[in-house]
Amino acid sequence: MVTAQILTIGDELLSGDTVNSNLAYLGERCRRLGIAVIRALSVRDRIDEIVAALVEVGDWADLCLVSGGLGPTSDDLTAEAVARACGVPLERNAEAEVTVAAMFARFGRPMPEINRKQADLPAGADMLFNPIGTAPGFAVRLPESAATGRRCYVACMPGVPREMKRMMAEQIEPRLARELTLQTTPRRVYRAIGRGESAIAVDIEPIVAAARGRSPGLTNLYLHYRAAAPQVLIIAEGTAGPDGARATAEELAGLDAPFVEALQPALYGLGEADLPARVVAALRAAGKTVATAESCTGGRVGALLTEVPGASACYQGGVIAYDNRVKQGLLGVAAADLAEHGAVSEPVARALATGVLRALGTDFAVATTGIAGPDGGSPEKPVGTVDIAVADADGCSYKRLRLHGERGLIQHMAALWALKLLWDRLVERGLARVELLD
Amino acid sequence: MVTAQILTIGDELLSGDTVNSNLAYLGERCRRLGIAVIRALSVRDRIDEIVAALVEVGDWADLCLVSGGLGPTSDDLTAEAVARACGVPLERNAEAEVTVAAMFARFGRPMPEINRKQADLPAGADMLFNPIGTAPGFAVRLPESAATGRRCYVACMPGVPREMKRMMAEQIEPRLARELTLQTTPRRVYRAIGRGESAIAVDIEPIVAAARGRSPGLTNLYLHYRAAAPQVLIIAEGTAGPDGARATAEELAGLDAPFVEALQPALYGLGEADLPARVVAALRAAGKTVATAESCTGGRVGALLTEVPGASACYQGGVIAYDNRVKQGLLGVAAADLAEHGAVSEPVARALATGVLRALGTDFAVATTGIAGPDGGSPEKPVGTVDIAVADADGCSYKRLRLHGERGLIQHMAALWALKLLWDRLVERGLARVELLD
Repeated sequence: MVTAQILTIGDELLSGDTVNSNLAYLGERCRRLGIAVIRALSVRDRIDEIVAALVEVGDWADLCLVSGGLGPTSDDLTAEAVARACGVPLERNAEAEVTVAAMFARFGRPMPEINRKQADLPAGADMLFNPIGTAPGFAVRLPESAATGRRCYVACMPGVPREMKRMMAEQIEPRLARELTLQTTPRRVYRAIGRGESAIAVDIEPIVAAARGRSPGLTNLYLHYRAAAPQVLIIAEGTAGPDGARATAEELAGLDAPFVEALQPALYGLGEADLPARVVAALRAAGKTVATAESCTGGRVGALLTEVPGASACYQGGVIAYDNRVKQGLLGVAAADLAEHGAVSEPVARALATGVLRALGTDFAVATTGIAGPDGGSPEKPVGTVDIAVADADGCSYKRLRLHGERGLIQHMAALWALKLLWDRLVERGLARVELLD
Repeated sequence: MVTAQILTIGDELLSGDTVNSNLAYLGERCRRLGIAVIRALSVRDRIDEIVAALVEVGDWADLCLVSGGLGPTSDDLTAEAVARACGVPLERNAEAEVTVAAMFARFGRPMPEINRKQADLPAGADMLFNPIGTAPGFAVRLPESAATGRRCYVACMPGVPREMKRMMAEQIEPRLARELTLQTTPRRVYRAIGRGESAIAVDIEPIVAAARGRSPGLTNLYLHYRAAAPQVLIIAEGTAGPDGARATAEELAGLDAPFVEALQPALYGLGEADLPARVVAALRAAGKTVATAESCTGGRVGALLTEVPGASACYQGGVIAYDNRVKQGLLGVAAADLAEHGAVSEPVARALATGVLRALGTDFAVATTGIAGPDGGSPEKPVGTVDIAVADADGCSYKRLRLHGERGLIQHMAALWALKLLWDRLVERGLARVELLD
């Protein structure tokens, strides 16, 4: 299997100023291409440190994907570092110079002199066209490794995520298909909300143990757990073992039935599609609509749904009923319920759901009200107490959550839980089912 | 300066299943503690690869912060790897065993046998208490490096973010203060929306060049740019140069006046506080309220505002007017405007803002309507066309955006731009100003 390192460059990745989302994106692309990312390294904008990272990768990896450090400013050093690692000078690349200038022309802006530097590439590099930014990328092969005799293929992309993604898809992936021999790893993802990682492991490890004897590929089966509250993903991969055997996609699919049985009702899906995408797909397929009434989640349920392309076919909109006056005024929550039970209570959660169902005339409605913290908790209703409800013409489901974590995490967990309650109602109504969706 | 590596362990970090947010958190904590994170490494759940990462860090770093691999399942290998790197066996730690069992007792669940493994720590390790999860952490010193004679301090935390954060704050930071000699790096952050990285560099690099001669510390000033559309942060740090001199906080503050002058009106703030936090702080200080009317952003403006603790003092709520019927029904947008100009138009954006201002009775209102894609664009209004408006009793501001990127990114950029338009209106009204807010 082709082995790779992802090298992300930039002080901001190490100082906490930026969450390294490029790493996850490139990791996913490699996985789908059948490239084993063995490790990921982030280094600062320091020439010696970047050169050292490039020199050492040549001894073990077939591929090094690099992002960052292609900009015009004084801390952008990737081209110079790659040139040093290759033992070649930087050269003004005529094609790159034209594309940088063309980008400024397209944006209707004069090109600052410093941007000319972006056309200086390691001599002999293969320029990678950037259709949406001023930083061209480039690819080179490192000198032959003294240890292995291999010449690692290094592809450098901008750090700006959308430019990186476009260059990866349009410029680098086609080159990788030519330069390397790729074989995809089959994998299966099981998605659950409502059962902890340990309990899931107890439920499924016997199933996996029983499967391992069935074939050399299944014996090598690689299983891992990803806990991202409130969700746990169980990922089974046909990774090759020392004997080279790997489970086939069909063998992995054989795990579906016992996993689904063991993990109900927490399990909501198989495959890459996440919960918001599944909710939207089920509603669209059924020709049904949904609305949201959010207090403590402040718009996150709507944001999760509307990030799914095509959500407008089922999501009508909603009310962010943050203040109690909005709960009463727009959604008809009774002042008596608010006074007697408090805003975070079963009656209010139900009234929010039925209120927005009526106000927007949808088939389903989902509501949240809770205490996200850091203040506002009480002994009976500590921070993390969240009431969620789902309404349709036949009535209303309700659940009280006891969440733990920081404000933003509580809001995120509550929003996903609200969609899970909606999902469960769709399943009950026969409008959704646990199925493979990639 | 104390040097560190952050080592994050887990297949999910390399396969694209998880965005490595722990890295950013630990990076920020180190920065604030005056620890220079030189590099960050992510490795798979493979014993040999984890051991190799630990052995090599001992040769150059004073500190290695580790997260992940402390769970109960078969792919959790951190304790074993650290034991091997230290050349000691794993031992059942009595204190850890009690705390794991106590955690299950507290949750009212029986302890699965596999969780007992979580109490097996490298012999001689210092156990780190985990008050909110079943995985205890631990700290050790690696054997003396043959190269440097140093003994790297290794602290291992769970990968679950909220458990990691709590352990870092309560268990590790106090130990670091005892074990290492720390000195914080002064830094200054300038925050802008509405001017590109290159243009900003052209504007401010002469200011920095002029400052460099003023003192040895300023000569060593380290400047970097973080572009995260639609925002650019300019970060100036008093990093020590080869001569050991570093800019003081006072010297950095001397950059404020020329930077603010050069970067208006894009610059909205100095310091660590982000735009939503500033908007909430300004509204609270002025005793004013705000509401949102969101179409294409689907709740993201509300989500940004409500993630700020204390947002309830100024944010009343809003309407997610995704479908045109909601725009008309709840916010009184005229059917004629929708028919004549389309939902993405100046009249509709203004009507959304004034409609929600009236419906919720707030002092300010902010509205978005646009085409997030991937479908729905036209030659006159391509994907990424977003109209935003801000209303108050005196009238309405409006701006058309032309954004580029994927659906989720367009929605995110539109939501931040909407808050920037609100910020600009608050500045015009004398209710907000560019100031240091950490």
